[in-house]
Amino acid sequence: MPELPSDSVGLVAPQTAHFDVPLALACGKTLQSYDLVYETYGKLNASRSNAVLICHALSGHHHAAGYHSREDRKPGWWDAHIGPGKSIDTDRFFVISLNNLGGCHGSTGPCAINPDTGRQWGPDFPMMTVGDWVHSQARLADRLGIERFAAVIGGSLGGMQVLQWSLAYPERIANAVVIAATPKLSAQNIAFNEVARQAIRSDPDFYDGWYAEHDTLPRRGLKLARMVGHITYLSEDAMGSKFGRDLRSDDLNFGYDVEFQVESYLRYQGDTFSTSFDANTYLLMTKALDYFDPAAAHDGDLAAAVAPASCPFLVVSFSTDWRFPPSRSRELVDALIRAGKPVSYVCIDSPHGHDAFLLPETRYQAIFASFMGRVAHDSGLEDS
Amino acid sequence: MPELPSDSVGLVAPQTAHFDVPLALACGKTLQSYDLVYETYGKLNASRSNAVLICHALSGHHHAAGYHSREDRKPGWWDAHIGPGKSIDTDRFFVISLNNLGGCHGSTGPCAINPDTGRQWGPDFPMMTVGDWVHSQARLADRLGIERFAAVIGGSLGGMQVLQWSLAYPERIANAVVIAATPKLSAQNIAFNEVARQAIRSDPDFYDGWYAEHDTLPRRGLKLARMVGHITYLSEDAMGSKFGRDLRSDDLNFGYDVEFQVESYLRYQGDTFSTSFDANTYLLMTKALDYFDPAAAHDGDLAAAVAPASCPFLVVSFSTDWRFPPSRSRELVDALIRAGKPVSYVCIDSPHGHDAFLLPETRYQAIFASFMGRVAHDSGLEDS
Repeated sequence: MPELPSDSVGLVAPQTAHFDVPLALACGKTLQSYDLVYETYGKLNASRSNAVLICHALSGHHHAAGYHSREDRKPGWWDAHIGPGKSIDTDRFFVISLNNLGGCHGSTGPCAINPDTGRQWGPDFPMMTVGDWVHSQARLADRLGIERFAAVIGGSLGGMQVLQWSLAYPERIANAVVIAATPKLSAQNIAFNEVARQAIRSDPDFYDGWYAEHDTLPRRGLKLARMVGHITYLSEDAMGSKFGRDLRSDDLNFGYDVEFQVESYLRYQGDTFSTSFDANTYLLMTKALDYFDPAAAHDGDLAAAVAPASCPFLVVSFSTDWRFPPSRSRELVDALIRAGKPVSYVCIDSPHGHDAFLLPETRYQAIFASFMGRVAHDSGLEDS
Repeated sequence: MPELPSDSVGLVAPQTAHFDVPLALACGKTLQSYDLVYETYGKLNASRSNAVLICHALSGHHHAAGYHSREDRKPGWWDAHIGPGKSIDTDRFFVISLNNLGGCHGSTGPCAINPDTGRQWGPDFPMMTVGDWVHSQARLADRLGIERFAAVIGGSLGGMQVLQWSLAYPERIANAVVIAATPKLSAQNIAFNEVARQAIRSDPDFYDGWYAEHDTLPRRGLKLARMVGHITYLSEDAMGSKFGRDLRSDDLNFGYDVEFQVESYLRYQGDTFSTSFDANTYLLMTKALDYFDPAAAHDGDLAAAVAPASCPFLVVSFSTDWRFPPSRSRELVDALIRAGKPVSYVCIDSPHGHDAFLLPETRYQAIFASFMGRVAHDSGLEDS
């Protein structure tokens, strides 16, 4: 790619922040020290009032926008929404995107060295919660001199982190954008996660999480986990219009090689993921999803749980998302309304299921950009 | 169980019919000889006009009603609907229920001995289609002297067999009852089947289907396949009201042992199934599901495909079935209407998802019984 697109943040490079202050975790353990890898896009203004934090989803990471090299075939995972003139306008905002603790893209996680043992953390890496992540993100904000974010923004598991920010650090978040998320997983959501975990943990190459020391990877398990995941990310209609019952060859082969195109797609997605993502990280991320339930400490009363929040919310759902359907977003919206919090809600018509939050769509972009315009205005930022 | 329930068909015993006339299959292979295991309930009348055929679903078998011994804790899988005074009233009807070819409950399948080799068929057992099953069922009918069934009835994959009966042998089926089925799988349906197949086939204990010769079973794979299946059999709401986010212990354990009740349920269901069902059979049944698509030979025109049918249909769907939702039943109903066929359709309100077709429910039973009353009347059967 000799020319980068004009609405791209361009070439970016990850940075690493090292922390030596112990981080007490919800599971009871403590991380004595850790690294957080992050990227930034745009410029922090003099009053440090234009910072925006991006929280990533299950298999996400810090590389949300731009390119690491001119040879990159794809930009960061949320490039559709982050850049000059885009919804999260880098001409106005200073955007921070990090890899969460427990991740496998540079931040301290199962693939990192455990200083106590000198070997990889592997399955000994402590279980993380959304609360732990937000705590670590607040420390990164301290390090970067951000007292208060103009907005914290995320989709799916990222949206849960946004909600947690609004409850744990209400004075440090001016606006919250919660996209395609849910205030807690349903039994069915947990069930799908459990299938993924069982697939990984029952793979003989998993070795109780010590696969790296056995010079192998639980590829089969991670492939299955990703295949199940993909089914839940796409709507039934999107899968239907993308693949239908199309065959790979002209005729049925009456065997177990790929017959239908959808099989080919799932196998490919699973295979690719199985060598590029860490299994211990995947397990840990699914557990963080399962655990999130801010209402639990309030006898299930979500309106009571969101009482500490003080910022305006934008909540976005997508019509064909069946992983976290619009009804789950409305649960949050209704609780915020009951609690007297300012909230805007929109359900975007989209055929793309849960994945819609990652994709460009006219109405989605218009509403997102409009909200962020208000964020800029309320934060006293000059229009670019 | 010292006393059997009065509305039970009571103690029943399977029988075996052996066939020596070769059966040509859709895959191009031929079964030279085979056994079909079946049960019957009620009595065949003198005019042989009161026979009803039950077709089973993915993991079903011939034992649909009654008990094999007084020690049985559970009756057959459709005992809620078959028996004296029940929807399929054995005081009126002579009910035949068989295990399909390729099954693992006595009919010839992967666990049977291949006469050509003297070893188990295993993965060499030929791929079956719904058409092949119906062909073999017609031969069983011949053997039992049934020229024409008063009704052919089935749920899920069983419903596909009913539809196939109406197209392949329109003169031999007086009524068709198609419950919780679909005229073809969607891409998402195929995708879930493919995950199940990959889980089984990637299990190192699968040995390309020759696990029996290695004195082992692909337990891990079959367990995962069943776990995925169970999620699709239950509605999200049913799973939610059954398990919610209930924990097994008082507190989170921040580990990978069971934390939520739904995890416990799925693991238990998977474990039980993994030692009681044959993996090669499971694979073959999922492929038969994938292949079924009577409209394919008519450029996707289902109304053209159902043209040969001449019997009245009852089509039943369930409101929260998301495996084969009401919209899929309506596809069939609309095609039958376009083709000018007599069809009754009802969508039953039920919280139980796809599994609802197996369960008793007042309105479901009333409508089913009412239709079967008309079947009895039209077949000239005396009221009992």
